Amino acid sequence: MKVTVSAPDAAARAAAEERLAALATPAGALGRLGDLGVWLAAVQGVVPPRPPAAVRAVVFAGDHGVAAHGVSAYPAAVTPAMVRSFAAGTAGVCALARQHDVHLRVLDLGVDDDLDGIDPAVRAHKVRRGSGAIHVEDALERAETEQALATGAAVADEEIAAGADLLIGGDMGIGNTTPTAALVAAALGLPAEDVVGRGTGVDDEGLDRKTDVVRAALQRAGDRVDDPVERLTALGSADLAATVGFLARAAERGVPVVLDGLISVACALTAEDLAPGATQWFVAGHRSTEPAQSLALEKLGLEPLVDARMRLGEGSGAVAAVPLLRSAALLLAETALLSDLL
Amino acid sequence: MKVTVSAPDAAARAAAEERLAALATPAGALGRLGDLGVWLAAVQGVVPPRPPAAVRAVVFAGDHGVAAHGVSAYPAAVTPAMVRSFAAGTAGVCALARQHDVHLRVLDLGVDDDLDGIDPAVRAHKVRRGSGAIHVEDALERAETEQALATGAAVADEEIAAGADLLIGGDMGIGNTTPTAALVAAALGLPAEDVVGRGTGVDDEGLDRKTDVVRAALQRAGDRVDDPVERLTALGSADLAATVGFLARAAERGVPVVLDGLISVACALTAEDLAPGATQWFVAGHRSTEPAQSLALEKLGLEPLVDARMRLGEGSGAVAAVPLLRSAALLLAETALLSDLL
Repeated sequence: MKVTVSAPDAAARAAAEERLAALATPAGALGRLGDLGVWLAAVQGVVPPRPPAAVRAVVFAGDHGVAAHGVSAYPAAVTPAMVRSFAAGTAGVCALARQHDVHLRVLDLGVDDDLDGIDPAVRAHKVRRGSGAIHVEDALERAETEQALATGAAVADEEIAAGADLLIGGDMGIGNTTPTAALVAAALGLPAEDVVGRGTGVDDEGLDRKTDVVRAALQRAGDRVDDPVERLTALGSADLAATVGFLARAAERGVPVVLDGLISVACALTAEDLAPGATQWFVAGHRSTEPAQSLALEKLGLEPLVDARMRLGEGSGAVAAVPLLRSAALLLAETALLSDLL
Repeated sequence: MKVTVSAPDAAARAAAEERLAALATPAGALGRLGDLGVWLAAVQGVVPPRPPAAVRAVVFAGDHGVAAHGVSAYPAAVTPAMVRSFAAGTAGVCALARQHDVHLRVLDLGVDDDLDGIDPAVRAHKVRRGSGAIHVEDALERAETEQALATGAAVADEEIAAGADLLIGGDMGIGNTTPTAALVAAALGLPAEDVVGRGTGVDDEGLDRKTDVVRAALQRAGDRVDDPVERLTALGSADLAATVGFLARAAERGVPVVLDGLISVACALTAEDLAPGATQWFVAGHRSTEPAQSLALEKLGLEPLVDARMRLGEGSGAVAAVPLLRSAALLLAETALLSDLL
């Protein structure tokens, strides 16, 4: 199931580079905001680019079997509580989304709870409750992976139909930095020690357990990880597979994406395998404190915009970067040309 | 002329730290945005802090005698042209200020041009035309330095009277990274080679000339640099002295400031000498590409929020960081407490 991705508009990119060079600013003085403006022109196919106005974020929530094995500082019961917090608008990313006029939607893909009483739309895409503990069993059945990938793609289509000109995929799920570290290790051929971080703040013993879990999961999965769908089946989860499907479909549809922290970037790395070239449509919002995120970003050739030692997840780092993206477009659109000035 | 600065509110800081720890987020997950929220609470004396709403930026413009000595990639004629661009709203920082609802004002402190036809308010605070070439003569007369410092303080008072709850000092002036590099070298006791950067993009020969100018200026000024007012007289300019006065008065009045790039941070370093403790009221907006800015930030103990290789000046890096400051306040104010959630 390879997905075909087109390249952003090369002519718009060239014209934007020309405009950037003609601005009444010293050459290179806009730094990464100059580069970002050029990227926005290429993905929008228009010069100067428009500041992204209809930014839409989807938080994919799910639980992870490994959470019962001491890999997280928090119990799995936090996941449904946080889904309710998203629905109530009181999670951290909700504050940022209101600030930046970003539409935010939370979807339960695999929370290990019935979420009684919550808006049924939140549960409409549920694939299963929880996922297998990846060091001892597959996270999903292959059919579940395919269902989750298709669901993520369908959600991207819905968001694009609602007018999105920039998409964000966020995450919620206690334990989710364990499967994502495993996904990064599998994609990059790295050992568990290189990719495992403290997630929400696990102690030294927990870090050792987490490393053991990732090592055992990689060994158990073996060569199956060469195929991205098998990789998600063995090491992922429904929420992670949905995020991969969401990102790959955004790229296929030519809608740009701001990536978030480890979960988002690990899914982007997987999406690139499923949809080669997808990364051309992605920009990195922030650098998290997780080592696997930096490794995956390096592989994708992406440099994050915000480096604030955040590790909240939820899409928060991506949403926090939205004003910088808008700045990049506005600088390219509204700064005088040198020829107008002198 | 020492200025007395009070410390931010320790009780508010403690209460904000307590609130941060009680949020329904993993400990430390907000990273620097968590720290910033605590700082905002301390400087505002209120918990949770308010997102800065009345952000006011003042761009202090001036020319520099050294510009005639091959230290810049651009001719001095660009300075008055850019002042007109600020007044017309077409400079880069103008786009960012509109985006973030930041009030922007440009003042001619020492532009080497009469700026005929421009709004007289822009010229109302002019101290002189240009400044002395610091490798061969003092930048200013001592009385001019004192006038510029007093003007900057008066401008801060005006902005605070207009309701500012966050201030930004920006800069415009071809050649201004040469005197500011000299100010940083003098304050830190460093040689010219350590502080000189490429500014707006000077070539290798220009960089050598710039280093020679800074070295000669430091040698010429000698021990006079131990006194911050003499330092500004020997090595500064009217626009730089006004920025120092502006920053020191903001701290004295207890109004927080977002610093910008090299010019802003070099002036903050000087303001700290004039008004010990002033730095408690400052936060670093962005990291510029100038080595002297990083050296001065390190001395002040400040870590920038945005690291985007910008080197536009104008206050642009500080204005670009404003949404992150607002995010910090909103996260502390609007995120659920763990006790509400479980």
